[in-house]
Amino acid sequence: MAQKIVVALGGNALQSGNGPATAEAQLEVVKHTCERIAEIAERGYEVGVVHGNGPQVGRILLASETAKDVTPAMPFDVCGAMSQGYIGYHLQQALKFALKKRGKDIPVVTLATQVVVDAEDPGFKNPTKPIGPFYSEEEAKAMVEEKGYSVKEDAGRGWRRVVASPIPKKVVEIDSVRRLWDSTIVITCGGGGIPVVEKEDGSLEGVAAVIDKDFAAELLAEEVGADALMILTEVEKVAINFNKPNQENLGHLTYAEAEKHCADGQFAPGSMLPKVQAAMKFVKANPDKKAIITSLDKAVDALEGNTGTVITFA
Amino acid sequence: MAQKIVVALGGNALQSGNGPATAEAQLEVVKHTCERIAEIAERGYEVGVVHGNGPQVGRILLASETAKDVTPAMPFDVCGAMSQGYIGYHLQQALKFALKKRGKDIPVVTLATQVVVDAEDPGFKNPTKPIGPFYSEEEAKAMVEEKGYSVKEDAGRGWRRVVASPIPKKVVEIDSVRRLWDSTIVITCGGGGIPVVEKEDGSLEGVAAVIDKDFAAELLAEEVGADALMILTEVEKVAINFNKPNQENLGHLTYAEAEKHCADGQFAPGSMLPKVQAAMKFVKANPDKKAIITSLDKAVDALEGNTGTVITFA
Repeated sequence: MAQKIVVALGGNALQSGNGPATAEAQLEVVKHTCERIAEIAERGYEVGVVHGNGPQVGRILLASETAKDVTPAMPFDVCGAMSQGYIGYHLQQALKFALKKRGKDIPVVTLATQVVVDAEDPGFKNPTKPIGPFYSEEEAKAMVEEKGYSVKEDAGRGWRRVVASPIPKKVVEIDSVRRLWDSTIVITCGGGGIPVVEKEDGSLEGVAAVIDKDFAAELLAEEVGADALMILTEVEKVAINFNKPNQENLGHLTYAEAEKHCADGQFAPGSMLPKVQAAMKFVKANPDKKAIITSLDKAVDALEGNTGTVITFA
Repeated sequence: MAQKIVVALGGNALQSGNGPATAEAQLEVVKHTCERIAEIAERGYEVGVVHGNGPQVGRILLASETAKDVTPAMPFDVCGAMSQGYIGYHLQQALKFALKKRGKDIPVVTLATQVVVDAEDPGFKNPTKPIGPFYSEEEAKAMVEEKGYSVKEDAGRGWRRVVASPIPKKVVEIDSVRRLWDSTIVITCGGGGIPVVEKEDGSLEGVAAVIDKDFAAELLAEEVGADALMILTEVEKVAINFNKPNQENLGHLTYAEAEKHCADGQFAPGSMLPKVQAAMKFVKANPDKKAIITSLDKAVDALEGNTGTVITFA
C-alpha cells in the first residue's frame, strides 16, 4: 500500500522573500516547489497538498480595498476563495509538468474547499489575526461603526482590521478529496480553507476569518487517514533556544516533549508554534503515525528518515 | 443509466442586471440559480456545471488595475483562476444546500480548470474581446508600448484592452472531472476555463484570452460523453427575427436549419450566436444526442420536452 502524505506548504514555498510580489515571480517559486513535491510523488507516496495564502490573500484584499470606490470591495471569504483559485492554478500547472518530466502521468487538481468552523469558537470573541492594509485611527473607527469590523493598533504602524483564527472542524468537500485521492494529487484546503459556519437551517455561510493552514492540513490528514502529516517550512529541523548560542536542533520529539517545549514558550506563536501544535494533534489522534516538520528542500530526505524533525506520540 | 447533462450558466444566472454588483448580491442570485440546478439533479439527471465570468472577472481586473500602484496588477489568466474560485465557491455552497433541502446528499465541488487553446488560433492575431477598464488614448498607447497589449477604441467611450477569444481544444483536468462525475456535481471550466497553451517542452502556460463559456461547455460535454448540452440564458426559446414584429420562437432546430439562420445573420454575435454554434458543434459530433437552449427557470420543463429550443443533428 502506498503511504499517504498530506504536505502543508508554507509561505516560502509560494513566494520569495526578496523578489517582487508579482504573480509572475510567484509562479517561478511555485515551479521550484513543485519539483520537490514531484520528487515525493516519484518515490511512490500518495500526496495531497495544502498551502498557505497569507501574502496572496493580503494582495487580493489590498487591491479590493484600494479600488473600493470604483468597484465594491470583496468580502473576505470571497478573497480566500479567489486565492485558492489563483495559487491552486499555479500549483497544479507546475506540479503536473514537474511530474511529467519524471515520466509520471498523475492528474493534479485544485478543489475549492470550504472548512467548517464553530460559530462559538472563542476566536470570534477576541479576533487577533491582522488582515489587509493599514488605516488611520479615524478610518479604522469608521469601519467599526459602518461595517462592524474589529480593528487593532499595530505596533505604531497604524490600524488594521483583525479577524478570528478559529479551529477547523470539518472539510466540507472531503468526499471529493477521498474519491480523487488514490489516483490524483489533490490541492485542497488552500489558505486553511474558506471558513464557513453551519446555520440552523443546515446551510453554510462564509465568515471573515483565517484558518491556520497547518491546522487545516492536520484535519485533512485525519480525514483522509494519512500515514504522515508533513509540514514544510524554512528550517530543516525544529529547534529549541532558537537563534540563541545554545540553539538545539531536534531530530525527534515525542508528544510529551513537544508539550513541555510549548509550555516553556520555545516556539514562536504564528510561526513554529502552530506547526508543532498541528503535529501534536495529529499524533495524538493517530498514535501509530507520525508528523514531520522540515524544509521544502529536505522533504524527501526527511521522509526517508535522514533529517527533519519527526514527531511521534510516544 | 442516468442521463448526463452539461449545464452552461449565463451571466444572468450569477448576477442581477439591476442589483448592486457586490459579491453579496451575487450570492443571492446564485442561490436562486442553484434551486433550478437542484431541480434538474432531483429528477435523476447527472449534472456538470459550467459558468460564465464576464462581470466577475471584469471586477477583479478593474480592482487589480485600479490598485496597481499599491500592489502589482494580476495577469489576466490569474484573474480568471481567481474568478473560478470566487464563483465556484458560491455555486458549490448554494447548490449543496438546495440539494439538501430536497433530501439529496450529493457532493458538489469546483475544480480549478485549465483549457488548452492553440497558440496559432487566429484569434491571437486579431484580438477583439474587450476586458477591464476604459483608458485614455495616451494610457492605452503606453500599455501597447510597455506591455505589448492590444487595445481598441470602444464606440467613443474610450480605449480598452482587447484579448483573443480562441477555440477551446482540451480540458486539462478532464480526468478529475470524469472520476468525480458519477457521484458528484462538478463545477468546472468556469469562465470558459483558464486559457493555456502547450509549449514545446510539454509545459502549459497561461495566456491572456477569454474562452467562450458555451464553447467550453460544448467541449466538456463531448469529453464526458454527455447526453445533452444545456445552455441556459435569458430567453425561453431561440428566435429568428428577434425583437421584430415577425419574431418567431423556435421549438426545434436541425443542424442545417441552424446553419442557414446563422448565415442569414439571425443571431447576435457574442450573445445568441455562440450558443447556437456550440449547440451545432455538439450535435454534429454526436448526431444521436441533443442540445437545448432555454432559460434558467424553464430548464426542467425543457429537459422533459415541454419547452426550450431543442437542437438535433437531423
